[in-house]
Amino acid sequence: MRERAVRAIALCRRIAELSEEPGRTTRRYLTVPTRDVHDLLRARMETLGMSVHVDAVGNLRGLWQPAHSIGKRLLIGSHIDTVPNAGAFDGVLGVTLALEWVAIAQQLNLPLDLEVIAFSEEEGVRFNVPYIGSRAVAGRFDPALLELKDKEGITVEAAIRDFGLDPARIYEAVLDDSTIGYIEPHIEQGPVLEAEGLQVAAVTVIVGQTRMSITFTGHANHAGTTPMNLRHDALTGASEFVIAVEDLARRSDGLLATVGKIENEPNVGNVVPGCSRVSLDVRHAFDTDRRAAVADLLAKAEAIASRRGLSVTSRQLSDQPAAPMDERLTAFLAEAIEAAGFPIKRMTSGAGHDAMVLAVRVPTAMLFVRSPGGISHHPSESVLVEDIEASLLVAQKFLQRLAAEVR
Amino acid sequence: MRERAVRAIALCRRIAELSEEPGRTTRRYLTVPTRDVHDLLRARMETLGMSVHVDAVGNLRGLWQPAHSIGKRLLIGSHIDTVPNAGAFDGVLGVTLALEWVAIAQQLNLPLDLEVIAFSEEEGVRFNVPYIGSRAVAGRFDPALLELKDKEGITVEAAIRDFGLDPARIYEAVLDDSTIGYIEPHIEQGPVLEAEGLQVAAVTVIVGQTRMSITFTGHANHAGTTPMNLRHDALTGASEFVIAVEDLARRSDGLLATVGKIENEPNVGNVVPGCSRVSLDVRHAFDTDRRAAVADLLAKAEAIASRRGLSVTSRQLSDQPAAPMDERLTAFLAEAIEAAGFPIKRMTSGAGHDAMVLAVRVPTAMLFVRSPGGISHHPSESVLVEDIEASLLVAQKFLQRLAAEVR
Repeated sequence: MRERAVRAIALCRRIAELSEEPGRTTRRYLTVPTRDVHDLLRARMETLGMSVHVDAVGNLRGLWQPAHSIGKRLLIGSHIDTVPNAGAFDGVLGVTLALEWVAIAQQLNLPLDLEVIAFSEEEGVRFNVPYIGSRAVAGRFDPALLELKDKEGITVEAAIRDFGLDPARIYEAVLDDSTIGYIEPHIEQGPVLEAEGLQVAAVTVIVGQTRMSITFTGHANHAGTTPMNLRHDALTGASEFVIAVEDLARRSDGLLATVGKIENEPNVGNVVPGCSRVSLDVRHAFDTDRRAAVADLLAKAEAIASRRGLSVTSRQLSDQPAAPMDERLTAFLAEAIEAAGFPIKRMTSGAGHDAMVLAVRVPTAMLFVRSPGGISHHPSESVLVEDIEASLLVAQKFLQRLAAEVR
Repeated sequence: MRERAVRAIALCRRIAELSEEPGRTTRRYLTVPTRDVHDLLRARMETLGMSVHVDAVGNLRGLWQPAHSIGKRLLIGSHIDTVPNAGAFDGVLGVTLALEWVAIAQQLNLPLDLEVIAFSEEEGVRFNVPYIGSRAVAGRFDPALLELKDKEGITVEAAIRDFGLDPARIYEAVLDDSTIGYIEPHIEQGPVLEAEGLQVAAVTVIVGQTRMSITFTGHANHAGTTPMNLRHDALTGASEFVIAVEDLARRSDGLLATVGKIENEPNVGNVVPGCSRVSLDVRHAFDTDRRAAVADLLAKAEAIASRRGLSVTSRQLSDQPAAPMDERLTAFLAEAIEAAGFPIKRMTSGAGHDAMVLAVRVPTAMLFVRSPGGISHHPSESVLVEDIEASLLVAQKFLQRLAAEVR
């Protein structure tokens, strides 16, 4: 497995060089380097004896059907688009590992059909909407998406045509009826496995997420002439809220709550701030807990504003429910982790993934691999070869178990 | 006095129309409308029998010398430049009132020489350095100031020449040896007099001010994948500091402390902030109290950072000592307030003024007039005619008292 791990990592590193920008990895949906990635992956797929095509939304798909196929297909993969100035492993690793999963299945002579998918769009960078590739595969592609424009004014539809594809055939991208599940291997993108000294984990649920914008309004005043007791300082109100958000999340099991963005007006050193707007990002595996936390925080914002003579308004930007992974497939993954000789670790995913979209259509599971330093979306994103090897030992056990179940 | 008050206000309103921008009052140092203001004020000065000139730094100066002059000169005035989109009274009111002070002195046949000065530059808008006009009058004009450039690349020296003045003669702008004091009538620019139901006040001291920039640095991380206990969130640290600043100022008599500006990185809703930089503005009438407060707040910043696994750095941007007003002149003003039938009110000025610069050269006092709503540096800045009338009654008593003292 060490050799397979080294090969999967090397392929990720090579793909990272296929970029829109010299010296940095940036690969948005259907931009020129996407084709180079397809060419590279297609060659590997064909070497493995797979039949390959690019569907109408730009996903590269390779199918392995063994001679003794029983007509049960497992979909394996992740995305190949990236954030700007990305690392080499987010998304791409799931695809290069999927190729090794195929090789393992072939070696074991398993009767499963295996479809490797390199989703074309997950990050939402080019068109500000994520999961374009997986929406099509899940049969949830809204044709209105075709009208979205990138910052050069190019629509999704034009981008698809420019890539030599036919947007009228996107409906054909939907997954095959024989598909019994989707597995997405992915780097954790966080520090939990490292902190616990673990290499791999089975994901139980992709947490739900609420995003809001909250605005505190007071009165801008001269910082030298306005006594403390006559101020209506919007920034002190917003600051108290930032602390309240952190405090609630620290006290609430499984709750993540973050103020990542603040905009302050007039934002001048000698003026008491008149308006401060903060973002709020709340995530939890249980939607009821998440919504209760949001309600609690909005009440706290009101209380802070009221006490300080400020007004407060809030706007919900998104409300994404939690996406539980399939219990049976996830149990198989956990058993495979144990069978491969590692401690069973189940964890939530705080980030969204293609698996979240696929999960509403087909039994879905995710296998996390440790992220050194918890670093992701950054050029220093990395993986350890022994962790990749561990994930492939798990893959072997999982595929054996699944084949035995469905045979 | 009502008629004088109405006239002074009307002149302010008329001057507010002399602007670089249609529909807004913006008048930076030595820009075209400055000449229009000079023409208007010169005509009024000449009507009062004053001899008028513009000194080499652009200050308009009118001198009234009575026939029975005793060679003791009182300087009265303020500045005529403005912030962008200004009100009609900040600075300008001190000049239009000074003209009425002359008329009052003439009516009372007082033997004082009165020099009215319209300082050319106080706000620091055009060259990012304030008090250019009053520095020259105080004999503190640093020739290096001539090299400063505005955003069009024009130097102070070129601006002076373009206005038809000779920068080599700036040293001649220094106040006359016969000057026994400087009085600056000015709107309060804050809400204190209004809150206390008062019309006028004598300023005891222009408070000292420290300005700093304080940077908290942690680690930017994914808001969905980084557990609360593994975060090093720079914004929560900065927010705790903002609250600590407010808290100290609320608990400390006479202390004003403000965080007006915050810059947060990467400032994206779903990323735990890695760096947050805040401004700090600390003012107090006593320099020792101010410096102790700054030291206390820096220690608090260190403690916050240390507890949160952040680093913190600070940079001092300015350290302006407090400028006490002249005790004798200020006592005369306070007595004049009482003699005019108003409650004596002494207060600090939290904002800087030309008086701060003059005070190091000549006995200086300031008379504050109530600012409705505490509003200044805004088009809705206003004054009440009865307050202006009150200030002129005070002027009358003050001039009588001063003339009696120096005769």
